Amino acid sequence: MRPSQPLGLLTVMKKVQVLAVLLGVVVLVVYFMLLFSGPVTTTTSTAFPVVVTSWLGEYGVEGMQSDLPILYVITPTYRRPEQIPELTRLGQTLMHVPKLHWLVADDATSVNQQVVDYLKSIGIPFTYFLTPMPQKYSRRWFGYLPKGVANRNGAMMWLRLHATEGVMYMADDDNTYDLRIFQEIRHTKKVSMFPVGLVTHTGLSTPVLRDGRWVGWFDGWISDRVFPVDMAGFAVSIPFFLSVPEAEMPYIAGYEETGFLNNLHVTIDDIEFLADNCTKIYVWHTHTQKSKASSREILDKKYDGTNLRQLQEVMVVN
Amino acid sequence: MRPSQPLGLLTVMKKVQVLAVLLGVVVLVVYFMLLFSGPVTTTTSTAFPVVVTSWLGEYGVEGMQSDLPILYVITPTYRRPEQIPELTRLGQTLMHVPKLHWLVADDATSVNQQVVDYLKSIGIPFTYFLTPMPQKYSRRWFGYLPKGVANRNGAMMWLRLHATEGVMYMADDDNTYDLRIFQEIRHTKKVSMFPVGLVTHTGLSTPVLRDGRWVGWFDGWISDRVFPVDMAGFAVSIPFFLSVPEAEMPYIAGYEETGFLNNLHVTIDDIEFLADNCTKIYVWHTHTQKSKASSREILDKKYDGTNLRQLQEVMVVN
Repeated sequence: MRPSQPLGLLTVMKKVQVLAVLLGVVVLVVYFMLLFSGPVTTTTSTAFPVVVTSWLGEYGVEGMQSDLPILYVITPTYRRPEQIPELTRLGQTLMHVPKLHWLVADDATSVNQQVVDYLKSIGIPFTYFLTPMPQKYSRRWFGYLPKGVANRNGAMMWLRLHATEGVMYMADDDNTYDLRIFQEIRHTKKVSMFPVGLVTHTGLSTPVLRDGRWVGWFDGWISDRVFPVDMAGFAVSIPFFLSVPEAEMPYIAGYEETGFLNNLHVTIDDIEFLADNCTKIYVWHTHTQKSKASSREILDKKYDGTNLRQLQEVMVVN
Repeated sequence: MRPSQPLGLLTVMKKVQVLAVLLGVVVLVVYFMLLFSGPVTTTTSTAFPVVVTSWLGEYGVEGMQSDLPILYVITPTYRRPEQIPELTRLGQTLMHVPKLHWLVADDATSVNQQVVDYLKSIGIPFTYFLTPMPQKYSRRWFGYLPKGVANRNGAMMWLRLHATEGVMYMADDDNTYDLRIFQEIRHTKKVSMFPVGLVTHTGLSTPVLRDGRWVGWFDGWISDRVFPVDMAGFAVSIPFFLSVPEAEMPYIAGYEETGFLNNLHVTIDDIEFLADNCTKIYVWHTHTQKSKASSREILDKKYDGTNLRQLQEVMVVN
């Protein structure tokens, strides 16, 4: 054995190490360059909504006459094969609820006429917004993306301009709502909270009460959240919301709820616990399976001149 | 090299082959023994339902007075974390439909009181059945299992005994129904058909019409089915159904619909095409994601004496 041999091996190994570190640095630099590059001059950099249409429903102003406080239900949505069915299903639930104004905030840059037509067809007073996600939040190369934040902030900006009383509630279009929850939240003084079923691996998210008093939280992901609650698990009164100017929802994945409630300076004493002291489940965080991309089979020329051409117009064909 | 060596290898290979074949035979024999063995004396070997409760709703007989033909909506269901939310969502849609009798057929051997209580709470006339799947169909070690057949056949047996007029429609609890479909099927003469969205990879199942006349089928899986339609894509008038005694749904996965329509001796001439000559989608075959098994965290003793004990009662905790 020559004495130089092991030394040569060490030299090669050191070179490899140096190269590996250099390669790592290059990869990181390119990664962050790409992450923070891209179109910064964009018309969608603000969450302020383009208010497209506001409609008082088939009964007009008269239909909104009632002694009940008005309910503002905020629903973020976006174009996908399930969009119309989801809105249909939720709409048919909301049709049972009196004195309700539905704020449908679309993550889109142009009006989805199918959505507007559907909303008009069911006769609920509604406002339809375009609230596209600002591009700077629309890509994240690791972790999760914040969801529905531009939609909800957009609708809340509208509320700050147009609402004076009543209660607001965030109702995603794939959740399931027992009608009783709308009766319960109607008279929220500041903030109300209640259990949500089918959330995370625990299958439930709820405040924990002992003898009717708050003692903690039950949720599959508590982490460092001050309010580890689901978006569907609380409602806020409009006067309380208006009393804290400019409080909005942060663009931080997983911290949308707690961030918003923190921004509103909510304390435990501000919270009413509903649903029979949080012993009933009236809201479920159901998820609809994403449809496999609809095939292009429907586009086949052999179907020209048939009903498939009209059906295709209302589908998302990929 | 010794000449016996290759010969020895061949002998070993032959022995291995014989052993492999023998092993295969043993595996197959054991497989079929297990497949066709098991409890054959079971109380659940018939699809005839145990009728548990029938209720005319909060308005009683009076509520069913109307010139409209009655709609019988058959919904198969089974115990799972999503069962109550799904029935809640569908129930809130059906609450909008006049003169409807909801036939809820549970794949269970004992009453799910939560389901019965929910049905009573929404005020729709309903009949709740126990229609457990016969055990001989409940395991299949390859291929697919027939789904909801005992439920639907059970409800249809009840219809043969109790119904004289009106229309029946199979409405799974996770589908989405635009209210317009219930208006459309109400006056079905024999069999009506219409498009169903979000089915298979084509995203649509529908009769194909040219100039208003039937020319074929569009569905992601045509195969050798005479009627390649989805369960939610047709309705049958009660008089037509009663005119073919004993026609029921076969226990053949994938052939439930076409088998049933064949058993009814349906021909193309018997079919009315609804939804504006099959140019509109009023029904979607939405699927709700199965919840991950709820964790047992809620059972932790530290929650004794809190609201979690009541919440746990209405959950499916695995």
